[in-house]
Amino acid sequence: MGERSSQVELLVCTRCRRGDLPDGDCDRPGARLFGAVAALSLADVRVVPVECLSNCNRGCTIALRAPGRWTYVYGELDDGADLDAIRDGTAAYVAAPDGLVPWRDRPAHFRKNCIARIPPMGTL
Amino acid sequence: MGERSSQVELLVCTRCRRGDLPDGDCDRPGARLFGAVAALSLADVRVVPVECLSNCNRGCTIALRAPGRWTYVYGELDDGADLDAIRDGTAAYVAAPDGLVPWRDRPAHFRKNCIARIPPMGTL
Repeated sequence: MGERSSQVELLVCTRCRRGDLPDGDCDRPGARLFGAVAALSLADVRVVPVECLSNCNRGCTIALRAPGRWTYVYGELDDGADLDAIRDGTAAYVAAPDGLVPWRDRPAHFRKNCIARIPPMGTL
Repeated sequence: MGERSSQVELLVCTRCRRGDLPDGDCDRPGARLFGAVAALSLADVRVVPVECLSNCNRGCTIALRAPGRWTYVYGELDDGADLDAIRDGTAAYVAAPDGLVPWRDRPAHFRKNCIARIPPMGTL
């Protein structure tokens, strides 16, 4: 990878409650997911905490993005069960210059729980 | 507004079927929504068709974005009933330099049907 500006960012919503927990700031699933993903030490990826990606009904939530690539938002993530999907799906995204990973090459969880995608700026 | 690069873009998914129509390319609700939104002639906004914003379960779908602003994705839009919400919500977004519109200033449909939001690039 080149400069930091061209690096892939993996945004993790630290406020996600997965919809099944009472209000409160303690031990949110989103915060746990951020810690777990940061600990993966993914190559060529900057893991960034974000307070609310506004996918509250289908958290936990991440987004993958980089300049010149499509941005993808994924939801329904569990901080324990879905770390393999996040690792594999992120690696496929890093390897795709435009961020478009063929359907068959996406982890099953990413196929089933894509919340939205946004085209890169300046290409339309 | 200044150069085109600083202009707000309103992306409209032209493939949305609202989940309630059979497969086929004829007269998709998303395509109708694009036509209706383009006809609004919104000030300081470029209305752009996009083939699939991957919010297929909760279409029709739009996204608002501009360099330096938060990107917002909204869903469950009807090409007839929700044009007022799109017009008012877009105007509020255009007026917000960072794209963050206070909750009380958002149209009711936008409050209830925010699919996701993404922070501006380079700010985290």
